[in-house]
Amino acid sequence: MTVEPVLIAGAWRPAAAGGTFQAVNPATGEPLPDRFPVSTWEDCEQALQAAVAAADLLRRLPPEQIAAFLEGYAARIESKAAEIAAQAHLETALPLKPRLADVELPRTVNQLRQAAAAAREGSWALPTIDTQLNIRSCYLPLGPVCVFGPNNFPLAFGSISGGDFAAAIAAGNPVLAKAHSSHPATTRAFAREALAACLEAGLPAATVQLLYRLSHADGERLVADPRVGATAYTGSRPAGLRLKAAADRAGKPIYLELSSINPVILLPGALRERAAAIADEFTASCLMGTGQFCTNPGLLLTLAGEATDVFISAVKQRFADAPAGTLLSGAVAENLHEAVLRLCAAGAQLVTGGQPIPGRGYRFANTLLRASGETFLAKPEQLQGEAFGNASLVVVAANLAELQQIVRSLEGNLTGCIYTSTQGEDDELYAALEPLLRTRVGRLLNDKMPTGVAVSPAMNHGGPYPATGHPGFTAVGIPASLRRFAMLACYDNVRPARLPPLLQDKKPTSRTWRLIDGAWTQADVPRRA
Amino acid sequence: MTVEPVLIAGAWRPAAAGGTFQAVNPATGEPLPDRFPVSTWEDCEQALQAAVAAADLLRRLPPEQIAAFLEGYAARIESKAAEIAAQAHLETALPLKPRLADVELPRTVNQLRQAAAAAREGSWALPTIDTQLNIRSCYLPLGPVCVFGPNNFPLAFGSISGGDFAAAIAAGNPVLAKAHSSHPATTRAFAREALAACLEAGLPAATVQLLYRLSHADGERLVADPRVGATAYTGSRPAGLRLKAAADRAGKPIYLELSSINPVILLPGALRERAAAIADEFTASCLMGTGQFCTNPGLLLTLAGEATDVFISAVKQRFADAPAGTLLSGAVAENLHEAVLRLCAAGAQLVTGGQPIPGRGYRFANTLLRASGETFLAKPEQLQGEAFGNASLVVVAANLAELQQIVRSLEGNLTGCIYTSTQGEDDELYAALEPLLRTRVGRLLNDKMPTGVAVSPAMNHGGPYPATGHPGFTAVGIPASLRRFAMLACYDNVRPARLPPLLQDKKPTSRTWRLIDGAWTQADVPRRA
Repeated sequence: MTVEPVLIAGAWRPAAAGGTFQAVNPATGEPLPDRFPVSTWEDCEQALQAAVAAADLLRRLPPEQIAAFLEGYAARIESKAAEIAAQAHLETALPLKPRLADVELPRTVNQLRQAAAAAREGSWALPTIDTQLNIRSCYLPLGPVCVFGPNNFPLAFGSISGGDFAAAIAAGNPVLAKAHSSHPATTRAFAREALAACLEAGLPAATVQLLYRLSHADGERLVADPRVGATAYTGSRPAGLRLKAAADRAGKPIYLELSSINPVILLPGALRERAAAIADEFTASCLMGTGQFCTNPGLLLTLAGEATDVFISAVKQRFADAPAGTLLSGAVAENLHEAVLRLCAAGAQLVTGGQPIPGRGYRFANTLLRASGETFLAKPEQLQGEAFGNASLVVVAANLAELQQIVRSLEGNLTGCIYTSTQGEDDELYAALEPLLRTRVGRLLNDKMPTGVAVSPAMNHGGPYPATGHPGFTAVGIPASLRRFAMLACYDNVRPARLPPLLQDKKPTSRTWRLIDGAWTQADVPRRA
Repeated sequence: MTVEPVLIAGAWRPAAAGGTFQAVNPATGEPLPDRFPVSTWEDCEQALQAAVAAADLLRRLPPEQIAAFLEGYAARIESKAAEIAAQAHLETALPLKPRLADVELPRTVNQLRQAAAAAREGSWALPTIDTQLNIRSCYLPLGPVCVFGPNNFPLAFGSISGGDFAAAIAAGNPVLAKAHSSHPATTRAFAREALAACLEAGLPAATVQLLYRLSHADGERLVADPRVGATAYTGSRPAGLRLKAAADRAGKPIYLELSSINPVILLPGALRERAAAIADEFTASCLMGTGQFCTNPGLLLTLAGEATDVFISAVKQRFADAPAGTLLSGAVAENLHEAVLRLCAAGAQLVTGGQPIPGRGYRFANTLLRASGETFLAKPEQLQGEAFGNASLVVVAANLAELQQIVRSLEGNLTGCIYTSTQGEDDELYAALEPLLRTRVGRLLNDKMPTGVAVSPAMNHGGPYPATGHPGFTAVGIPASLRRFAMLACYDNVRPARLPPLLQDKKPTSRTWRLIDGAWTQADVPRRA
């Protein structure tokens, strides 16, 4: 039996394996041919040693070299785009086109290029200079970053290709990637290109390392290891919280992106004005990627009325008419079924769907559920449980006070939307609801579904716990996402030649922004009189 | 028996007390007259309810009003400066002049005024605008902040007067202050002025609240309460780590400033050049405030040689000649004695001091210890245990390799210093040591002792765990310290009139800096063509 090697210290070497696993084609339920190792601690140990050495070297390299790596890697991904997208399609059943090939892959390389530009410019590090006191500070790399990628975006959030990877590298850290077990061959394809690009750019070979799978115990040991700078995790809440507990005990930063049901509030004026269009938008957003987006709208909040009933019927029809996509894995399908049963047990009523679809592959009927506000408020914890996949719950509140109470009962979420009339007739309701929703979500939208997450400097893909582990950080959006993987480093009375280039009087690049004596500027530090 | 009231919801009211305590005059060991309550959970509950309502109101107020409060409060403190400094002197035995009256009090009001300026300007919130995608983000207040102040800076780090307080308020949050039990009357004096200033500025009365003491269990419950936005704690490591564990389990941000021994590396060229001057500086820094500074240099690292022995003798003489100051409390004195005994048990040798000073008040002989590098490396954990107070350890390494190994064995610290020759003869040693020290400290100094912590935008009073809980944040330095008490809030396609003023096209003040389409600017968003 051949077992795939892991990537440690620049070499593809046999894993110190405690077992093996195979990915499964979700469209057929059949295992895919390659066998991947479950690494033991010995692999982690070797990777950590190499990562520490790489981190020390990376700190001394000019950012230009890191930028060149990210750009070289992006170009290599593009040159293998068809192959990578096909592999990801095989392992995830996500549509090849447009999703993987035309949307997610271009987004992935765009992200790497934005990260390269940020590394080169340096402004992300918030260089701050007090010329009077000769105190200077900026963010510096934190050390080896462990990235645990999710199942749902094998490219753009992939452990060795996605946003966390790009941010950690651009901030100057090596990455130890833990692949998601559902798409190991896709991750391997990325790792091959990453290693090649790394060597071409002259970075330490251990800047990029890959393990495929770990025991829970080794994962917890890894994120708490003294040699680790920080960890980024995107995935299920229970696994994420176990890692968080381990990292917290060791005082190690961990950035988590956990569950989110992304409430959408639909107000009566908007419904009167454009119910059909909103039903289209909501359905498309709910079923996009078979509902397996972090920002999938799992909860729609409305006010009772005839128009609401008509709207729910319209959505029901659309859900029933739309083809049910294939889910990412058997586990996702099972969890979805269990989550829908739990919602029903808590008082939600099935409007449509609710059952697995028999036959090959992992599919579940597009599912819409409904509950009254009263029902929701009787069991708010259960009824805001995430149903990851193509299922959403509509809650119909009797009145504004009940709707406000529902919003108050919500946990932290990545996003929250409010749809209102364009003519101002919902403005009072908006004013009564927005302050409650605002503090509970990282990104607030108007008249727009949350499933698009633009890679913009102004984006926040984050939010209050338990959507993430800390409300001040974003996983998407450059430059802010880089600062997660950095430490604030102050230089007090340090001699000029010993300062890092970002803090020297003469700025390192023409584009670098620095906060000098309270003003942002692209100029050098003025000479003293 | 009269028990002092607590400040809840704008009123000085009797505490729901589970006990009482008195402060002690450290200079005499005698209890001071006033009895203060140990609050039960009922007081916390009442304060939390009031704080939530205050937080909601504060979010709607213009920053100008918050700035006016901070400035009014600063002016009120100045008008009561003599009284406050005298009270603090009585409770802490810190020198009235210059320390309390001429240094710490002016620093306190300066900090409040800097925070006011930051609140008014708004740039601290990093307003970021993507005009193409109409996505905008900034930091917004997080909700009620609990501040647990330390014993050693009753004014500038006081729970209702210090840096954490100023930052939390300037970011738009109410503060629930937990006084340090060693200076409750000083804290009460501040709270009276804070409440008056709060009412004068038209802020919600519960913007400032004060409890004097809690059980450990209630403290842990408080920092984990869903209504709390974040907690700031400065104090001992064991108590801080208990609060951290409780806050972490609940997913609540907590900013800790724990122990730090602030290593100073003294290289041979500097010693040859200016040994006497450095002995003076080192002694002054070690004994300042009777060694009870967070940034007190508790560890001096040197290379073996005759000059080093002479230097140690010179410091010994200075330590022995200097008067031993009064420690903050009996507990501090006992802990210091125990810490010195532990250092000796681990192999350190007493050079001078090492014993409590008999008589009234809490005093301990100025203490210098010495250990070889080999001894240190045999028990690095024990020999870097903090001895809070007027005791420092000199470690004499046999050679550079051993010195490097010692630095590698250090935990995270707030600061690290390197003293080198001005003529370049230590430059190779510096280059061999700086990268190791840099990643282990928040602030790196050259040729300067760490005990001054300027309130500068470029300051970092923070550092890797266990000096603090997260290496990316600073407790001193405006504007960065404000962002600890804020959440990143994104607005995606939100209608113009619904945006917070900081994110509207027209900027709120002439000084506000915003990152618009990748460039920092004080201009409005340009009109679209």
